[in-house]
Amino acid sequence: MAATVAPTVLGGSAAATPDKTAVPASDKPAAADKGGDVRNLTLYMEKLPNGEMGYGLRPGEATIPGPLIELTEGDTMNIEVVNNLDVAASLHVHGLDYDVASDGTKMNDSVVQPGERRTYVWRTHAPGRRQDGTWEAGSAGYWHYHDHNVGTEHGTGGIKKGLYGPVVVRRKGDALPDKQFTVVFNDMTINNRTAPNTPMFKAVRGERVEFIVITHGDFFHTFHIHGHRWVDNRTGILEGPQDVSRVIDTKTTGPADSFGFQVIAGERVGAGHWMYHCHVQSHSDMGMSGVFMVTEADGTVPGGMHSMPDMPDMPGM
Amino acid sequence: MAATVAPTVLGGSAAATPDKTAVPASDKPAAADKGGDVRNLTLYMEKLPNGEMGYGLRPGEATIPGPLIELTEGDTMNIEVVNNLDVAASLHVHGLDYDVASDGTKMNDSVVQPGERRTYVWRTHAPGRRQDGTWEAGSAGYWHYHDHNVGTEHGTGGIKKGLYGPVVVRRKGDALPDKQFTVVFNDMTINNRTAPNTPMFKAVRGERVEFIVITHGDFFHTFHIHGHRWVDNRTGILEGPQDVSRVIDTKTTGPADSFGFQVIAGERVGAGHWMYHCHVQSHSDMGMSGVFMVTEADGTVPGGMHSMPDMPDMPGM
Amino acid sequence: MAATVAPTVLGGSAAATPDKTAVPASDKPAAADKGGDVRNLTLYMEKLPNGEMGYGLRPGEATIPGPLIELTEGDTMNIEVVNNLDVAASLHVHGLDYDVASDGTKMNDSVVQPGERRTYVWRTHAPGRRQDGTWEAGSAGYWHYHDHNVGTEHGTGGIKKGLYGPVVVRRKGDALPDKQFTVVFNDMTINNRTAPNTPMFKAVRGERVEFIVITHGDFFHTFHIHGHRWVDNRTGILEGPQDVSRVIDTKTTGPADSFGFQVIAGERVGAGHWMYHCHVQSHSDMGMSGVFMVTEADGTVPGGMHSMPDMPDMPGM
Repeated sequence: MAATVAPTVLGGSAAATPDKTAVPASDKPAAADKGGDVRNLTLYMEKLPNGEMGYGLRPGEATIPGPLIELTEGDTMNIEVVNNLDVAASLHVHGLDYDVASDGTKMNDSVVQPGERRTYVWRTHAPGRRQDGTWEAGSAGYWHYHDHNVGTEHGTGGIKKGLYGPVVVRRKGDALPDKQFTVVFNDMTINNRTAPNTPMFKAVRGERVEFIVITHGDFFHTFHIHGHRWVDNRTGILEGPQDVSRVIDTKTTGPADSFGFQVIAGERVGAGHWMYHCHVQSHSDMGMSGVFMVTEADGTVPGGMHSMPDMPDMPGM
Repeated sequence: MAATVAPTVLGGSAAATPDKTAVPASDKPAAADKGGDVRNLTLYMEKLPNGEMGYGLRPGEATIPGPLIELTEGDTMNIEVVNNLDVAASLHVHGLDYDVASDGTKMNDSVVQPGERRTYVWRTHAPGRRQDGTWEAGSAGYWHYHDHNVGTEHGTGGIKKGLYGPVVVRRKGDALPDKQFTVVFNDMTINNRTAPNTPMFKAVRGERVEFIVITHGDFFHTFHIHGHRWVDNRTGILEGPQDVSRVIDTKTTGPADSFGFQVIAGERVGAGHWMYHCHVQSHSDMGMSGVFMVTEADGTVPGGMHSMPDMPDMPGM
Repeated sequence: MAATVAPTVLGGSAAATPDKTAVPASDKPAAADKGGDVRNLTLYMEKLPNGEMGYGLRPGEATIPGPLIELTEGDTMNIEVVNNLDVAASLHVHGLDYDVASDGTKMNDSVVQPGERRTYVWRTHAPGRRQDGTWEAGSAGYWHYHDHNVGTEHGTGGIKKGLYGPVVVRRKGDALPDKQFTVVFNDMTINNRTAPNTPMFKAVRGERVEFIVITHGDFFHTFHIHGHRWVDNRTGILEGPQDVSRVIDTKTTGPADSFGFQVIAGERVGAGHWMYHCHVQSHSDMGMSGVFMVTEADGTVPGGMHSMPDMPDMPGM
């Protein structure tokens, strides 16, 4: 079985989140961009007992989603991928800088055969002005990685089985969360599970909680969370009075889209059981729903939970 | 039959729109946030003669969509919901501040049994800086409310039948419209109707017209309007030369998404019959189309209307 | 067969792209807005040998997509459309300013009968402040035109057959590209083609390349490109450090949506074969995929291309 809590890999100096398994990183910088760190990481692609597939930091510890990998703009990450599957698979990342040798596609001859290993190099950069006067955007964002080879040359089979995970690239100065939760709408599942087996995310009222939302597969969804809302910009946080971005609590998302945001748990609404779900009605009814549990400091929750959203009462109208 | 023009509830001091039925509001403030108003309102959930369901401000006057409820950041609205249906139903709002007791879900024991009533409390707040230095977004936005209990615990049956309505929260200083129109893409309908029974929205050239666009159900759509365009930001209005938002006349939207914008009727294009429709080709062909009629001050319209978009001529190619 | 490279019409003073067929424009300004240019253009609607339909600048030269039409804010374009088809068809544009006589709909009696011709007038304007103090957005954007009459009154049949094309309106001072490529997701095709017949876009490393992405038909898609990313704002280019827009490499898009962006070919990732594709897994597997080939100045490409994404290897899992 896949663990429901995936570990985090801290790739940069700015990231510092509690309650996470940090991976010892090599300290021998080899290709640092503008003073960024260079880290080395090993990822294992493995079959889970139930036939699913996942990425993990150690043999036998693959999770769905895979480990959260965090970098700060300027960092480089060398990822040695070990293929313990019985099919050729790969690592393709969104948003970061990589040569064709790290594309993770069969077209660019960058997949890993069963029993073999291959190092993928991810680079990141801060925003800056080009010589022609235009601005180059930075790498900061809520990104993700996935297989691009199992089943089809677009990785359709690998993604369906669970070969995907989150990546966060921060800008120096970005607010850091107390807790982080990843929601992957993969076809009609959340993290390859449906209610009542979807994640119960827990936080204490007042904690800064980061949600990373990724979509995969063949369908479109709308991510919604009760009692909380965010800003539809790069960080999900209002950048100041001049920020004209829309404030939303529902976002349309399609395959390979990713976004993230931070909320203060229970801010202005209090502790409680707050649903998060896909708001496509048939999708939520079929189990794309879970609970964000915000407790008081003493662990209590007001209101109680009278029925789970995962056991819909459907008395045909 | 549902009325095609729903009344508006003015919840704040800034809102002042003509031609609307304003509800007398209680003047005894009880929980005003930062000087905002506290209003009391009663909403009736009722079955319509044709089997649909709606929210209304008075018994026997339910509409689809339900009444437009407007607030200004800082306002509180106490809504007593009377359930005149024969099934348990509720009121769930997007974007605003509410405790679990006002969540409107079975999970949080906040639905209304048939023949009973329950008061839901909605609060709103202006943007501001938190103690940790980050900014908290305000409540201003184009939001909506809907049932979360009929048919399934996600309200799939209630929404399908018509239990939904618009909410606008304004920031002090926001431009106020002369007229307001609500378009709800609910499955393959507009406001539970298809052409030729979709709303004909009428305005005089030069009037400031606000469109509130909400989606519900199982499908994704693209809202398009002829001859007019808006800015894809919080207000739908360009905030100044520094506003880098995209200008659009088509927007992808999925279930529970909502957005709004203001246009000057006929600005730079003149009076005329201007289609609004879902731009998914089969959806518009099946009747997700209507007309925004912009007249001259004397009521005339140039060009005339030679055929209605609601009677598509489909001579197989 | 439709040509795979469509010509460009330069409508304004700012547009200056190489390797394009410029159309001689009339120099007799008739309705210039704020000093903008007035150009005249003829577009031919024609049947292609394979039964598709297209717009072209000269008889017998229709392409899918149709010619790229570029304007600068303030310009006016008079387009005489010649209907060489055997069905009534039209020209409907998104985002620009036009009277009902140029709406291109049957409702507004502005379609063209077979064998006849009709002049459509498109106007554009720069942003500015209205008398009431609010700002009016400008016309700048990545827009498009299409038939609105063949098959149904929404042009479902004409669009399916290929009657669509790109429009770019620039603001004075906008960065100009070295090369421009148009990707139209039309139902399950790219520019009415599927792999291996989708366009191979070629650029030299360092060139400024503009992508114009349009969607048509009945389906939703996610546009993704490998090794490159853009900013989700008006221009697709970061406007400076204060620009809080999200940086993305995948965008959800539905029928009639359009957006565009510029990338520096191979910036930070080098030359190579970089896939662009719809990231809905079944769509890419069915052929909604192509290659953006970035060469070194001497024409070489590192890595080589070991297999085409258009010939997916699908060894059932």
